[in-house]
Amino acid sequence: MLKLYSFGPGANSLKPTLALYEKGLEFEHKLLNPAKFEHHSDWYKAINPRGQVPALEDDGKIITESTVICEYLEDAHPTEVKLRPASHYDVAQMRIWTKWVDEYFCWCVSTIGWHRHVSKMVKDLSDAEFEEVVNNIPIPEQQVKWRRAREGFPQDLLDEEMRKIGVSVKRLDDHLRDNEWLAGGVYSLADICNFAIAGGMDKGFPELVNENDTPGLVRWLQQIHDRPAVKAMFANVPREF
Amino acid sequence: MLKLYSFGPGANSLKPTLALYEKGLEFEHKLLNPAKFEHHSDWYKAINPRGQVPALEDDGKIITESTVICEYLEDAHPTEVKLRPASHYDVAQMRIWTKWVDEYFCWCVSTIGWHRHVSKMVKDLSDAEFEEVVNNIPIPEQQVKWRRAREGFPQDLLDEEMRKIGVSVKRLDDHLRDNEWLAGGVYSLADICNFAIAGGMDKGFPELVNENDTPGLVRWLQQIHDRPAVKAMFANVPREF
Repeated sequence: MLKLYSFGPGANSLKPTLALYEKGLEFEHKLLNPAKFEHHSDWYKAINPRGQVPALEDDGKIITESTVICEYLEDAHPTEVKLRPASHYDVAQMRIWTKWVDEYFCWCVSTIGWHRHVSKMVKDLSDAEFEEVVNNIPIPEQQVKWRRAREGFPQDLLDEEMRKIGVSVKRLDDHLRDNEWLAGGVYSLADICNFAIAGGMDKGFPELVNENDTPGLVRWLQQIHDRPAVKAMFANVPREF
Repeated sequence: MLKLYSFGPGANSLKPTLALYEKGLEFEHKLLNPAKFEHHSDWYKAINPRGQVPALEDDGKIITESTVICEYLEDAHPTEVKLRPASHYDVAQMRIWTKWVDEYFCWCVSTIGWHRHVSKMVKDLSDAEFEEVVNNIPIPEQQVKWRRAREGFPQDLLDEEMRKIGVSVKRLDDHLRDNEWLAGGVYSLADICNFAIAGGMDKGFPELVNENDTPGLVRWLQQIHDRPAVKAMFANVPREF
């Protein structure tokens, strides 16, 4: 039996959650509570020493990294539903899109998300409580991010991240005005991984993502929201924010 | 006929070059001259609008992104030589290693490489020549990097990159002390992509990579240098530095 450790259906946690729903694979879903810093707890670090969700357990083996898990599900658990395009060239295009999410798109959106949500959460902690939280984080760069969230992110960093979000939104919309899906003309991991980040942007960034400015992106978001697997996922798995 | 556009065998250009040599695939090799900024020229931007090498042409189609090209070669041009491990779990481990190169390891080493080599090259240009070079670069973040190379990278950035190089070297050595190869007990794209960055570190960073401090990493480097495909590649393809 597959077992997924994740947060609710947003960001990196959404990727394998939605892949599992789309493929109709049975799995046990262990939801961790980010507000309780459960991903930095000892029990979870025994599963993923990096203290990051998601992680997939398959037959006693642990696979980490959301994008890698998605490709693993395609490799190890083939179903009638395929989440990679048929041609090798189109698979390469799909991977360029998922790689872009991991190297560029997710980071700028993440910083603004942290600025809006995580900063508030960690500012409510006492100094001692906060230090305990930070000391449990295994990745030094993540420790720096938590400290920045508490101190407040510098304005020039926030401005630069907003610039990158603008570039990202334009890149997606430019492509989606002329193409139904991101890679190879079919719904694939390229769409799932980008939807993980862009999914709520019409609500979170309405000045950037709206019917006037980004009709292609808005149409694509709606098309994904209308999918039965997406509806089932959001109905079954509670969101944090 | 496959055609590879790349620089000499180092960094991202090494990845598909070595994959092609290992697989014994025939290909036309179009080497670009970085000192002449050939990757930012109009003829090359018609091939890859991002102005980055490597790019692979296969039957008139262009595939970009070095790691994606390597997986594409495995998908589209299977040979007796396999560069992915046999089990799905091990392929996932391989991808975690190649992803780590692209998201962490390559960047810190790249900045120090730029500080040592590219800075010197661009400081020799006049202001007008430099502006022409920068204006031909399509990626804004790359423009910033070229400007920084000319002005000189800030010391705190260089210090942070050296810290990350230390972390990276330790991560590789820790694994390679107990394992012959990075993923699944076999030579794979995990090794090729890491070798692309770590290949010259015993020369470039001898204070970090040496037989006393990192015996696992040094043994692995030597083992790769001893491979016939690696010897053939270095014999045939001139290096820039």
